[in-house]
Amino acid sequence: MSTLNEIGKRAKETSFVLGKLSTTDKNAALKKAADKLISESERILEANRLDLEAAEANGVKGSLLDRLTLDNERIESMANGLLELINLEDPVGEVLSMKKRPNDLVIGQKRVPLGVVGIIYEARPNVTVDGFGLCLKTGNAVILKGGKEAINSNIAIIDIIQESLEESGIPRDAVQLIKSTDRQSTTELMKLTEYLDVLIPRGGSGLIKAVVENSTVPVIETGAGNCHVYIDSHADVSKAIPIVVNAKTQRPGVCNAIEHVLIHNDKLEESALEIYKALSEKGVEVRGDERFRAYAKDAVEATEDDWKTEYLDYIISIKTVDSFDEAVSHINAHSTKHSESIITEDYSSAQRFLDEIDSAAVYVNASTRFTDGSEFGFGAEIGISTQKLHARGPMGLKELTSTKYIIYGNGQIRG
Amino acid sequence: MSTLNEIGKRAKETSFVLGKLSTTDKNAALKKAADKLISESERILEANRLDLEAAEANGVKGSLLDRLTLDNERIESMANGLLELINLEDPVGEVLSMKKRPNDLVIGQKRVPLGVVGIIYEARPNVTVDGFGLCLKTGNAVILKGGKEAINSNIAIIDIIQESLEESGIPRDAVQLIKSTDRQSTTELMKLTEYLDVLIPRGGSGLIKAVVENSTVPVIETGAGNCHVYIDSHADVSKAIPIVVNAKTQRPGVCNAIEHVLIHNDKLEESALEIYKALSEKGVEVRGDERFRAYAKDAVEATEDDWKTEYLDYIISIKTVDSFDEAVSHINAHSTKHSESIITEDYSSAQRFLDEIDSAAVYVNASTRFTDGSEFGFGAEIGISTQKLHARGPMGLKELTSTKYIIYGNGQIRG
Repeated sequence: MSTLNEIGKRAKETSFVLGKLSTTDKNAALKKAADKLISESERILEANRLDLEAAEANGVKGSLLDRLTLDNERIESMANGLLELINLEDPVGEVLSMKKRPNDLVIGQKRVPLGVVGIIYEARPNVTVDGFGLCLKTGNAVILKGGKEAINSNIAIIDIIQESLEESGIPRDAVQLIKSTDRQSTTELMKLTEYLDVLIPRGGSGLIKAVVENSTVPVIETGAGNCHVYIDSHADVSKAIPIVVNAKTQRPGVCNAIEHVLIHNDKLEESALEIYKALSEKGVEVRGDERFRAYAKDAVEATEDDWKTEYLDYIISIKTVDSFDEAVSHINAHSTKHSESIITEDYSSAQRFLDEIDSAAVYVNASTRFTDGSEFGFGAEIGISTQKLHARGPMGLKELTSTKYIIYGNGQIRG
Repeated sequence: MSTLNEIGKRAKETSFVLGKLSTTDKNAALKKAADKLISESERILEANRLDLEAAEANGVKGSLLDRLTLDNERIESMANGLLELINLEDPVGEVLSMKKRPNDLVIGQKRVPLGVVGIIYEARPNVTVDGFGLCLKTGNAVILKGGKEAINSNIAIIDIIQESLEESGIPRDAVQLIKSTDRQSTTELMKLTEYLDVLIPRGGSGLIKAVVENSTVPVIETGAGNCHVYIDSHADVSKAIPIVVNAKTQRPGVCNAIEHVLIHNDKLEESALEIYKALSEKGVEVRGDERFRAYAKDAVEATEDDWKTEYLDYIISIKTVDSFDEAVSHINAHSTKHSESIITEDYSSAQRFLDEIDSAAVYVNASTRFTDGSEFGFGAEIGISTQKLHARGPMGLKELTSTKYIIYGNGQIRG
């Protein structure tokens, strides 16, 4: 039996224990883990220094290096993330419906943990703590496979958490880290159907695509966001401009930032140059089609490739459309079905956009940057699903559960 | 572009039209399709004769031949299935929640169609009609790939349904049949991630396994049922026997029939011989472990392989356990997580069984044969999910939908 099979087997066995834990016990364990991350933070920082030295030696730079870097403040923030979970409602055990059938069978549908969750992610040690906390609160065992650049930090974090679990009387295998950093173990994890109930990739589109294509375990696809704002012929341009600027520049590297603006021809004269100026002032490279550039002469020429591109950077492309229908078709054909917004004062345009755009989150007169668990009021988030099965949009604790039917009989047989 | 890509593209385009249809229009189309299946039944029977001739020439026999065979009564029953859908509530458009956030954004979660559903199934023409009806009612486009033995029947049925859709003013591509009967087209369908939102295999465990292992499209795993009844130390044996007999023999070839009985040692003397006799009288081959055979001396010796086997036949295997915990561990280790039942008069045993058994439907004092959509009151069923993502247990109309977030703003930007 391979190491990964053993990890899977232990996770499955532990999941039965976790599924029976009371909310009180889970919350106490979250508190103990948070406390221990703080009291043992020097162990984490020491391990993190090893990762940082190796990363620098390998030429890792920029945001990847930044995400890998831990300090006392970031460890405190991870610990606080665990403490915040304590106040959230435990979804496990909720009975969604309970009905009596004509034959007196009473059939209820009850929320239960998924069982064993696998998370594959990049070199972000905060996801290690986050994944543990979300899964423990929902009674799931979790197997983590983090980016190899963070391996020492992850090992230290998981050691500390497992020690805290033992102190709480909870099996340490509630969270397991795959310590092997080769691709082979990732491949094996994606085939671990016997033990894994779901696999969640968290990271860039390359990682997500690889998991979707190779996993035989059910996957929740998260993430990629080729998002749009459409400025309708009935738009209030004074609302449109701050929304476009916010959706592009408030944090350009995240999935719910916009990459494209569609402007109805009727509003082009009124808005094009102003939008160009507002974005340029924020350091955004503005690319536009011919009609847009007739007003914003300094804009770069946009090509067909632009409409498909998720820049995740200070770049935007702007297209002119002649009708509402053209805007909807363009978005449905080019978006990654994440978040889109219409700017309009027209009732029918607003309602039709909400109906006809095939994305996880569809907005009227607001920035797409609101698509996340905390802004939606979920308190915590495991990712943003861009698929339609199981969960769509920001996923909170409920999305880490399944249901089972519980049936109370008194001797019923089927005729 | 391959034929299958074209089919996928047309299905996706059509799905946007279907998603906007009113319930009234969908119901009218179901009525017209049902009527036309009856009025054009001779075309179906003629095509079916071709299939039956080919099947007989190829030596197809028994239940496979029976399922392939159509007559006026069976066509009427398929048409009635469509009419019954008319009376069911349309899940599309339901708003599951709508909340105002502190920044005045109003965030709602609305039920929407999945989009494009693929169904891969065996030579059962009734699934062709069923799949069409369930998907139309839920606003989904559907691509069907049926068993090759039924190809002529399926072509005739789909031609008639597509004609009825045209008469109803609905695009005929709402339902498309893959007419190629080779495996290549099945393989292509399983990779059609660009257009398919979900793939549902309906059939035996070989088909389901092949789809789960090869599909890159999200799959809902249905079906296989290695189901158990556990006779607890506190069982009322007078309830246990009819339940065991019903769960095994009322229809042995279906997934919710039981394959195994576990008997607590304390109840063995009271129940073993009686159970053996009751099952034998119904023509069931009873296999038992040593302790069971001490009472039922004519029973066949059960081997380790028996506990893993879904017989789907008049065979059962019976094992003695020494404790409640042993029963639960055995079931969780050997079941396919479909349906299991405990026979007990003890409150704690009942509650613990409902909690600890990791199956889609868990019963107290009732036959497992109730696990299906009509018995659960759903009115229609697309299959029984044995996975934990998206849907678990019998799947009705709601399980053919997804959700989207709709957000009403008035200029909100993120700070």
